[in-house]
Amino acid sequence: MRDFPIGVFDSGVGGLTVVREIMRQIPNENIVYFGDTARVPYGSKSKDTIIKFSKQIVDFLLTKKVKAIVVACNTASALALEDLKREVDIPIIGVVMPGAIAAAEATRNEKVGVIATEATVNSNIYTHYLRDLNPNIQVYSKACPLFCPLVEENWLYDPITIEIADRYLSELIEYEVDTIVLGCTHYPLLRHTLRKVVGEKMNLVNPAYETAITLKNVLKEKQLDRLSKTNEHLFYVSDGAEKFKAFANTILPCEVMETNDVNIEQY
Amino acid sequence: MRDFPIGVFDSGVGGLTVVREIMRQIPNENIVYFGDTARVPYGSKSKDTIIKFSKQIVDFLLTKKVKAIVVACNTASALALEDLKREVDIPIIGVVMPGAIAAAEATRNEKVGVIATEATVNSNIYTHYLRDLNPNIQVYSKACPLFCPLVEENWLYDPITIEIADRYLSELIEYEVDTIVLGCTHYPLLRHTLRKVVGEKMNLVNPAYETAITLKNVLKEKQLDRLSKTNEHLFYVSDGAEKFKAFANTILPCEVMETNDVNIEQY
Repeated sequence: MRDFPIGVFDSGVGGLTVVREIMRQIPNENIVYFGDTARVPYGSKSKDTIIKFSKQIVDFLLTKKVKAIVVACNTASALALEDLKREVDIPIIGVVMPGAIAAAEATRNEKVGVIATEATVNSNIYTHYLRDLNPNIQVYSKACPLFCPLVEENWLYDPITIEIADRYLSELIEYEVDTIVLGCTHYPLLRHTLRKVVGEKMNLVNPAYETAITLKNVLKEKQLDRLSKTNEHLFYVSDGAEKFKAFANTILPCEVMETNDVNIEQY
Repeated sequence: MRDFPIGVFDSGVGGLTVVREIMRQIPNENIVYFGDTARVPYGSKSKDTIIKFSKQIVDFLLTKKVKAIVVACNTASALALEDLKREVDIPIIGVVMPGAIAAAEATRNEKVGVIATEATVNSNIYTHYLRDLNPNIQVYSKACPLFCPLVEENWLYDPITIEIADRYLSELIEYEVDTIVLGCTHYPLLRHTLRKVVGEKMNLVNPAYETAITLKNVLKEKQLDRLSKTNEHLFYVSDGAEKFKAFANTILPCEVMETNDVNIEQY
């Protein structure tokens, strides 16, 4: 089983920022990625729908004989992880708990901001986890629904993006948070613009890094870590394989040679 | 069959602007609406996926014994209408041809702008139809992917929305178009903001009005028009029925009492 791949999924391309971190931290591992590009985005949809979509994807990944699964989407981690854990007997890791751990460690004044999709914010999951880690932490959450479309429009360093970030983040700055969790996998791509708005001193937490470390530890603990490095990553999407491949090649440290379409509704 | 309802569908809530116009123009008719809120938006997705989703929805609407179908989504009209027509033997009307007819009639200088989703713009369908109507018309198309999320964020009259509209529309203004087609059913909700950017003299064409008139004529011609007025409209979505109902009640002239969830992937 050690040689089996890791399944990673996201609602679309955002999860590639998590894949990038896994490739950096545990380069021996092979990855089977699925991006649900036909039904993206998840962030404005209901819990029931997000659970249904996530279960279909897990069923698909299991056909690829994965030894562990990373839910590389904050919205699916927030709303579906507990249900998914009940379905399968391999390790399943979300991005929310690792993100919360990193934020709890980073904050000095115990005031943490969370920016995420509407569904993640409404789930209150970051607040819940952060309070479990440190009951003194005050959490201020803000849904930023325009950030994903701005990333997809590729206006990463645009004055309009700065203005929108300024609008969304002003409340968090007023609350004097010293740490902000980038609670959606698209947001790290806006890191430079967000930095301009929040200043140099703010801790910006990207849960991807901590997620890769968590995965590394889980694999080692369960003696599931791969010992040799002969990489063969596989990429699947529910729509637009070519468009996805082009985007993946701008993000990942390896070349994505092929991406295949999957009819995910059949799972 | 005259008493059977009209099926209307959209990728989400935008098609309600078409329903509103149908209710105004042919108040006798009953409507069965389906909004694909679990898989919205369509505008960034591929032709194959949009055809697949549209066929599932048509199959669902046929179970409701509809006598005609209105594809109240520009993207689905642009990419799936021809395929849908081959599948069923009742009248199917899209919003693109009615929009093109209205624009061809409105323009004086034969320069028409089209703003729409990425998928609609890439299909070149408005250009194709407008040129069929009048080969002298020059068409300038522009995808405006941030407009839908701005509508969903409810920043309808926001300075940021004006700035984004200014960016998107500046090319069309430079080309000296005298008419702009609002080629996505969300865009009429931004009409006041767009008006500020393009000035009072620009013709802004909303295809919804012309679509309702086309439907009226088709029903009359085929003797399918309903003669009495005892309305019973039905609303279905693939996700978030309550949220949809609240939105529908801000748009429609009648009260939406109930909206039901449908597992559309089964069709």
